[in-house]
Amino acid sequence: MDEFALIARIRERLQTADPRVRVGVGDDAAVLAPSAGCAVLSVDAVVEGAHFDRRWLSWQDVGWRGVAGALSDLAAMRAAPVCALLSMVLPEDLPGDDALAIVDGAAEAARAHGASVVGGNLARGPVVSLHTTVMGDAPSPLGRGGARPGDGVFVTGTLGAAALGWRLLARDAEAQGPFVRRWRRPRARFDALPWLAAATACVDVSDGFAQDLGHVCEASEVGADIDLAALPVAPDHATAAARSGHDPLLLAATGGEDYELIFTAPAPPASSSADVTRVGTITEGADVRVT
Amino acid sequence: MDEFALIARIRERLQTADPRVRVGVGDDAAVLAPSAGCAVLSVDAVVEGAHFDRRWLSWQDVGWRGVAGALSDLAAMRAAPVCALLSMVLPEDLPGDDALAIVDGAAEAARAHGASVVGGNLARGPVVSLHTTVMGDAPSPLGRGGARPGDGVFVTGTLGAAALGWRLLARDAEAQGPFVRRWRRPRARFDALPWLAAATACVDVSDGFAQDLGHVCEASEVGADIDLAALPVAPDHATAAARSGHDPLLLAATGGEDYELIFTAPAPPASSSADVTRVGTITEGADVRVT
Repeated sequence: MDEFALIARIRERLQTADPRVRVGVGDDAAVLAPSAGCAVLSVDAVVEGAHFDRRWLSWQDVGWRGVAGALSDLAAMRAAPVCALLSMVLPEDLPGDDALAIVDGAAEAARAHGASVVGGNLARGPVVSLHTTVMGDAPSPLGRGGARPGDGVFVTGTLGAAALGWRLLARDAEAQGPFVRRWRRPRARFDALPWLAAATACVDVSDGFAQDLGHVCEASEVGADIDLAALPVAPDHATAAARSGHDPLLLAATGGEDYELIFTAPAPPASSSADVTRVGTITEGADVRVT
Repeated sequence: MDEFALIARIRERLQTADPRVRVGVGDDAAVLAPSAGCAVLSVDAVVEGAHFDRRWLSWQDVGWRGVAGALSDLAAMRAAPVCALLSMVLPEDLPGDDALAIVDGAAEAARAHGASVVGGNLARGPVVSLHTTVMGDAPSPLGRGGARPGDGVFVTGTLGAAALGWRLLARDAEAQGPFVRRWRRPRARFDALPWLAAATACVDVSDGFAQDLGHVCEASEVGADIDLAALPVAPDHATAAARSGHDPLLLAATGGEDYELIFTAPAPPASSSADVTRVGTITEGADVRVT
């Protein structure tokens, strides 16, 4: 498949009926309808060798992970997803069908989160990389810098699952199951946006709970008391972690790429949910204490 | 310089006082103030080995070219530049100062065009690549698909200069002069936006005049009659091209990366400028005839 044929087939796959998209792929740039909210923009990359190994996931998974990981930063800003642009680097010898599989996975992730792929770029290089820019729409964007002493620290979903899945794959590329799936097919938590109505700060778990909470504390100039035993984990997390020789609590506290949300708020969300767990309290000072 | 130190130094360099930027680098995503116009988005990449050779330009030039080339797509959509995001891939052994030089060149290009760098990503990989996403603001975006038979075909500036500069460098990495500079430091033609008030279609010259005009004709379902001798070139273009063994007209017609604008309009711009040249007429059919 030559480059023009590949581009033509990519365009076919990226048609969208989203009324917010006035011009999608195919012109010099994409055009989005005006919105009353703020435009929120972020970019994230997955690079072969640095972020993934071809044995651990399909090309569709590469596309999905690239888009879902980028979109998660919009959720952390309390922004609704609008669109994504894909800048891909592909080796000369990568079959066209593999490139299309990356696009398919990316488009699938975008659709699953309510966004459209509206543009992109194709270049040649020695390893596969996918650079995903996402735009969201936020009537009231939420940053990292607003946490106040006395606020509760809350977490959506469960922690450490993606990191465990990645470790299972690194040991056995044929590994399957819910933890592997959490790493291969993360989801950005736009469903949690209603719970952020009274939140003072938010960040998504990409580097790991401890490090990402640290970003909030640093930006907000506060500390935190965290109850390690309260960190939410999947029902069979402890068993699966221990069986593979990993400390379940350490995975929950430091494992990255869960794409859950950590947020701070004076009180639990009004629309309380079993999928939100209070794990600690924001304090004066700059120390994050774990007990 | 470790990664955190590098990121801290990049952030220092990317502070902006642009009131349109509510949150710049440093949070999960950038936040732009609401605008009455359409958001216009595009992404472009420069990859070492595919688009440039380290001997041909400085790291500042790499950053400048990445941003200016991406911004040019906004000019072609009749959008004013707002912001840029940089996703960089850097080899482990690239000195931190070289990475900062890329950022400096990118920020310089953004500022020179009236935009701010508001976010980015850093990843490791075997060769340098820079993926630049740009956002512009367009009250009335202009696509490729509106050219009508009888419209004039107009070009800003001069053609073939960047392609000649690139050829001079490929032969002698020490080459200097205006053509080399055109390739190393292109400028997006936002100054030409007032001339597009009555334009029916527009594209920027990235692939080369013939190919880019072809994009307009294809999208507009029209043909064109082009007067090859009318293609505007720099005063010493013919001499410099001939001296280095290149056909001056061929360079003007097919040389890429000039980032000038080709536009179609029923009449010349009202605010007529010496920097706009009529080079032909849009016709019925699908053929681009060159005489």
